[in-house]
Amino acid sequence: MQDNIIADRMAPYLQLQMYAKFTQLAVKNSCVNMGQGFPNFPPPQFLRQAIAEEALTETLQYTITAGHPRLLKAASEFFDKHMGVKVDIAKEIVASSGAQSVLACIFQALLNPNDEVICFDPAFDFYRPLIEFQGAKHVGVPLRPSQLNSKASILNRFENGKIKFSKEDEWHLDYDYLEQKLNDKTKMIIVNSPQNPIGKVFSVEELDRLAEILEKHPQVIVCEDAAYHHVVFGDYQPFSYPRCITHPKLKSKTVCVTSAGKMFSATGLRVGFAIGDEKYIKGIKSAQTYHNFCLNPILQTATAKCLEQTIDGKYFTEIRDLYEEQSTMLLKGLIESRLNLHCWVPQGGYFLVTDITDVEIPEKYFKDDQDGHQLTKDFAFAYYMANEIGVVCIPCSPYFENKELGSRFVRWAFCKTTETIQDACNRLK
Amino acid sequence: MQDNIIADRMAPYLQLQMYAKFTQLAVKNSCVNMGQGFPNFPPPQFLRQAIAEEALTETLQYTITAGHPRLLKAASEFFDKHMGVKVDIAKEIVASSGAQSVLACIFQALLNPNDEVICFDPAFDFYRPLIEFQGAKHVGVPLRPSQLNSKASILNRFENGKIKFSKEDEWHLDYDYLEQKLNDKTKMIIVNSPQNPIGKVFSVEELDRLAEILEKHPQVIVCEDAAYHHVVFGDYQPFSYPRCITHPKLKSKTVCVTSAGKMFSATGLRVGFAIGDEKYIKGIKSAQTYHNFCLNPILQTATAKCLEQTIDGKYFTEIRDLYEEQSTMLLKGLIESRLNLHCWVPQGGYFLVTDITDVEIPEKYFKDDQDGHQLTKDFAFAYYMANEIGVVCIPCSPYFENKELGSRFVRWAFCKTTETIQDACNRLK
Ligand SMILES: Cc1ncc(COP(=O)(O)O)c(C=O)c1O
Ligand SMILES: Cc1ncc(COP(=O)(O)O)c(C=O)c1O
Repeated sequence: MQDNIIADRMAPYLQLQMYAKFTQLAVKNSCVNMGQGFPNFPPPQFLRQAIAEEALTETLQYTITAGHPRLLKAASEFFDKHMGVKVDIAKEIVASSGAQSVLACIFQALLNPNDEVICFDPAFDFYRPLIEFQGAKHVGVPLRPSQLNSKASILNRFENGKIKFSKEDEWHLDYDYLEQKLNDKTKMIIVNSPQNPIGKVFSVEELDRLAEILEKHPQVIVCEDAAYHHVVFGDYQPFSYPRCITHPKLKSKTVCVTSAGKMFSATGLRVGFAIGDEKYIKGIKSAQTYHNFCLNPILQTATAKCLEQTIDGKYFTEIRDLYEEQSTMLLKGLIESRLNLHCWVPQGGYFLVTDITDVEIPEKYFKDDQDGHQLTKDFAFAYYMANEIGVVCIPCSPYFENKELGSRFVRWAFCKTTETIQDACNRLK
Repeated sequence: MQDNIIADRMAPYLQLQMYAKFTQLAVKNSCVNMGQGFPNFPPPQFLRQAIAEEALTETLQYTITAGHPRLLKAASEFFDKHMGVKVDIAKEIVASSGAQSVLACIFQALLNPNDEVICFDPAFDFYRPLIEFQGAKHVGVPLRPSQLNSKASILNRFENGKIKFSKEDEWHLDYDYLEQKLNDKTKMIIVNSPQNPIGKVFSVEELDRLAEILEKHPQVIVCEDAAYHHVVFGDYQPFSYPRCITHPKLKSKTVCVTSAGKMFSATGLRVGFAIGDEKYIKGIKSAQTYHNFCLNPILQTATAKCLEQTIDGKYFTEIRDLYEEQSTMLLKGLIESRLNLHCWVPQGGYFLVTDITDVEIPEKYFKDDQDGHQLTKDFAFAYYMANEIGVVCIPCSPYFENKELGSRFVRWAFCKTTETIQDACNRLK
């Protein structure tokens, strides 16, 4: 026990969060902020309009705790049309306050103390605390890049300003390590595809292999974090790419998490969903009831309207195309920068990562400002960037259990305006 | 372990919640719904307007996780003016998704497994699950009515259609039992004033006595649930009544919970606050960050606007007067009903309770519809009301650890329109 006031489970998580710290630094140093994953362009006008309309008319009292019927209906019709998933709205779907709250409710509902949860590293750094709050254990299984692309090799692959994901950009799961880590205590495995931070989309072959391995561990639940399911590049269509929730062998053991905020480029919306079999959803509904009671009805019916209005998918194709352009622009800027970075082409999501092994960083950035402790290279790089180059990026060691591996990488968000990305690229030149 | 899918902590809480069950019954039987505590009159137009305006202009991305600066500033200025509490907005306040989420974050941040939390019964039935989810233990210490008022005696006390709270309406805390239950494992005590369901407002003398007892147990944190702090009757002014957060001996050990949704008669708003010393708030902020990440910025700045616009207090005096009238109207209706109920005058909040010991209920209502199990009298009464009288009220045994004591009472909500209350009274005649 470290403190007799704060609960032990929270003690490791009291510091200012990394994202807040780098956002503050961005403001202080007038940096271009390529850190936190929120679009810095306006959300669609139809979303603002829907909220404004509902604000004037919708009842403002408690709704059904699992979600307003109109919201659950709109979401399940959308998921049916775009993902081919049929959902019983009374039993197989629940809405909560953003994907974040959905994840928190999933872990609370499904994890007992000492259960183990496997994450593929680099993994969204909010999984670990949410897992540990339940007394469960976070187990990282690494993904590794198949090769270190040189700037020249990747520049060579551009054609008419475009570049396609190919073999050289793959990150591979360490299946042997995964099999070693799976055991009777494993309760859940998280598949985040498209992945934050590397932008990986798991292939059919990868999901097949995963399904085969999981057949030996039938108790394992798959938590598919599909927060970025609308942002998939290349030949994939929004929402339609290899998914656990539609995989023949995985779907019955999958709880799929999505975020209306991410879908409508409005991370502040705070509406997210879990869909899956009733045996999971009944617990998640209860966690949602006790933790949030219900969501604001205005946000729920406005989100429903947006899902109804965009069901033809046009909006999402446009958004996907936009993000693909922005990712290419950022990638090109990073390659043309004065820094010796190694890059990979992302397949989706809001982010890409670069390897910083060959970048030289002044010694002083390896010491923490506040208490002088030794920093890993990814943090040193991020402070160097924020202080001397005027660009904020995010260190990746927090995304890895293997900190040595993780400290080779930093994350850049491309969910930003052309001006912002150009500005960052100019500063990096 | 009851189920190898759902976590053990959730297993007791998977059934449809009592409020949802009675709301469904109200709809099915076309009952007047005096059950769940939400106003069935429209919320103030200024709230709708504020949300509609902010929807069109406010940035829709993540905000600071502890709360939008404008919201925290408006809330602390409001609390300063009306409660005389000075709050450092960087350290001593956090916003979450309704008082419900605030409570969930408080328990997650401050309770270790095996810690004990004392609640005064009847206590809001959501405390227990939230406490148990942390592995902590809920300990109920009963309040008991000082006497059973006869209908005639209470009718006698009406003057010009009004009635004042007096000695006969008091419920007393069992201090001996409280002292027995306090021990080294006690981490927290919850003081809900005005109380749901009995409408009790703790007096200065009661808080003094509590403070004195707690001096012997300095580790105990006071969680003051002030969800109804704007609804205090008689000579009390909204927000200004004996409070833990302003009590000289309690304030430094108090975390005070409030609900903007309740304040603006819009339970769907989902904005609530915790204020208190930094040593508590730092943990609650972290729980809020990981559980909800942040609140919707529109709801935050709109709530800020409403707090700014109502800082003169006029709106709250009107609302308080309205609720006091409604509570009197309901009380009178219950006394004039054909049922032999015992009543007490509430001092605030949304509810009052009645004793049903002397009401005769047909035998068949003591059997559960679904599985035939034996029901306690409060449930039998509530089903009887819903099926034969057409009025929904809420059984009180879930609010008590002592179910025998609790099954003597049912709860009636008076946060309803005059028409609704009159309709209920007519059906009860
Ligand atoms: C992988 C992943 N899952 C979930 C979330 C949370 O999304 P939301 O904003 O809907 O809470 C994020 C946000 O960054 C994310 O990157
Ligand atoms: C005593 C008490 N505390 C907290 C709450 C939750 O309030 P909110 O709607 O802000 O979550 C309620 C709601 O009924 C309540 O009665």
